[in-house]
Formats: sequence, structure tokens, C-alpha cells
Amino acid sequence: MTNKVFIATSLDGYIAGKNNELDWLEVDPAPESMDMGYQAHVDSIDALVMGKNTMELIAAMDIDWPYDKPVFVLSRTLKALPKKLSGKVFLVNDDIKSIEQAINKQGYKNLYIDGGLTIQSFLNEDLIDEMVITTIPILLGGGLSLFGALASSLDFRCIEAKTFTNGVSQNHYKRCR
Amino acid sequence: MTNKVFIATSLDGYIAGKNNELDWLEVDPAPESMDMGYQAHVDSIDALVMGKNTMELIAAMDIDWPYDKPVFVLSRTLKALPKKLSGKVFLVNDDIKSIEQAINKQGYKNLYIDGGLTIQSFLNEDLIDEMVITTIPILLGGGLSLFGALASSLDFRCIEAKTFTNGVSQNHYKRCR
Repeated sequence: MTNKVFIATSLDGYIAGKNNELDWLEVDPAPESMDMGYQAHVDSIDALVMGKNTMELIAAMDIDWPYDKPVFVLSRTLKALPKKLSGKVFLVNDDIKSIEQAINKQGYKNLYIDGGLTIQSFLNEDLIDEMVITTIPILLGGGLSLFGALASSLDFRCIEAKTFTNGVSQNHYKRCR
Repeated sequence: MTNKVFIATSLDGYIAGKNNELDWLEVDPAPESMDMGYQAHVDSIDALVMGKNTMELIAAMDIDWPYDKPVFVLSRTLKALPKKLSGKVFLVNDDIKSIEQAINKQGYKNLYIDGGLTIQSFLNEDLIDEMVITTIPILLGGGLSLFGALASSLDFRCIEAKTFTNGVSQNHYKRCR
């Protein structure tokens, strides 16, 4: 059972700008035109876990729902999900460890953990095994941080570091236990 | 004329822990036992610029002063420098752009910019050309950040990414202007 993060941040560690802007993620040439490992990552997981904000952000985009694997959405406030996501997205509301165990019990063993707060919650329970962090080489100077406070420090090791022709880099970390 | 940063941070972007601890910088095998590009970096520069705190931190260590190139120390409060550093360290007190120009005029063209606040001051004036950032793969959960607020965002590109056998990675960024 492996919980994986696959996310892009600015060079100063933000996943969104000061006003939640994401336009800085668009680099030239666009990451979509090159293999940055995203498909291999998605192929390697059984289900996704994300927060309400991330789900709503993706649902509001002018695209079809991009995941063909179950997506578990963490929310303490949401009562119902958008109808168009019926059968694709499942609401969960419990403490992180119980949520993870319940998902695993349903047979989903390799999970893609996404969204800033959800990643921070999993890290705070030491439930992240791998992180692939793509660094967009811009200093934003402020915004929404990928990482937050922790109960205790966590050791990883970098097992691979790459650069792409667009100046973007990608580091793959595994938790040392 | 090039202003360069060569620094280590935690995976969450801190240069010191919550209580200024630096012990997490010690990885096994120790970076000293491998070439992580430090000597080539020092060979490439003509002088150093650092803040009072960084200078005092190094001066307090149980080692000889490690630089054989002039070190310019930024301080608005310091009146005198430790006697043992006479001829090695020079006090400067002016705005960042004027300091940089005055140092360049003395013939020192490639500068090693060191210390968190000094790096942030140079970045805020868009006076950093290259950054080699060594990432110790630990999440500290808090501490003293390498990067801070900026007047405007700054684009870089990653020209090289490496991993070392100790699980540490190093990314080399150049400013895109």
C-alpha cells in the first residue's frame, strides 16, 4: 500500500499564487506536450483522495472529469456532490487514518493524494510514502504553500532528479522509515 | 557580473529549524565526503556578501575563517568586526543596489550572496542571476525560510538537476530576463 503525491509547485513552494492564481503553471513548451511522468503515475494508482476545494476546482473547469478511477473527496461540510460526478466521486468524512483504512479495505491500495490541505493532513499522520514534485522555476513571493506545520519532521530521500527542456525540474522522493 | 546563491534547504524550504537548529543538514554519508560542487562554486566567485547573522554564525564555529576571498558583511547596527577577521571581512551599510555597485567597482564581479535575509534582499531587487539549491530531503514543518515576499515574481530556469548517493538533490537555476 502506497500513498503518492504528484504535484507542481513554484520554486518557493507554492501551489497557488496570492490570489489563488494558477497561470504561472503554464510554461513554454507546455508540460502536456512532453511526458513528465503523469500518465505513468496515474496508471500506478487505484484511487484518488482530494479535498473539497480541489474537487470543486477541477469540476468547474471546462473539461470532462479527468479521472477514470474512484475519487474520494474529504469534506466535513459538503452534503452532496455534483450530479455529473455520480459514481465517480465519493464523499468521505472521518479522521485521516480511518479514511485511509476504509479506502484500503475496499481494495484500493495505491492512492494518489492531491490538494494542499489533504497532502498536509496525510503528511501530519506520516501517511505519505512517495512524492513526485515538479518545480516550476518561478519565485512567486507568496501564495498557498504545499507544505505546512508538522507534528514531527519526516525524512525522505531523493531517488531521481530530472530537468526538462522547458526549464522545469522534477524530483522524486521516497519516505525513509 | 554574476550574483550567485549556493545554499542548502530542507524539502519544505527552510535554511534553519524552528529553534535555529542546523543538525538536519548532517546527512549520511556527509556531503563533505563527496563533491557537491561547492569548491567549483567558490573558485568561480571573487567575493562574498552576507548578513551579520551569517558572519557571526561562521565566526563562532570552532573552525578557521573558511574564506580566502573578501567577505562584505551587511549590517545597519554593527560598528566593528571581530579583530581576527581584520583584512578578511568588510562592513557595508547602504541600500542593496549601491552596495552591489560599490563592490563591483572594486573589481569584484562575481559575488557569492549568502544568508537568508541577504538573499531575500538581493532577490527583491532582482539582483540574483544563479542559484544552486541543495535540498536535504527532510520536511521540518517550520523554521527560517530561504525565500520571502517579493515586489514581483521572478522567472528562472532549471539548467541542471542531480541526485547524490545520500538521497540529497541539487538543482541549478538561472534567471530568465
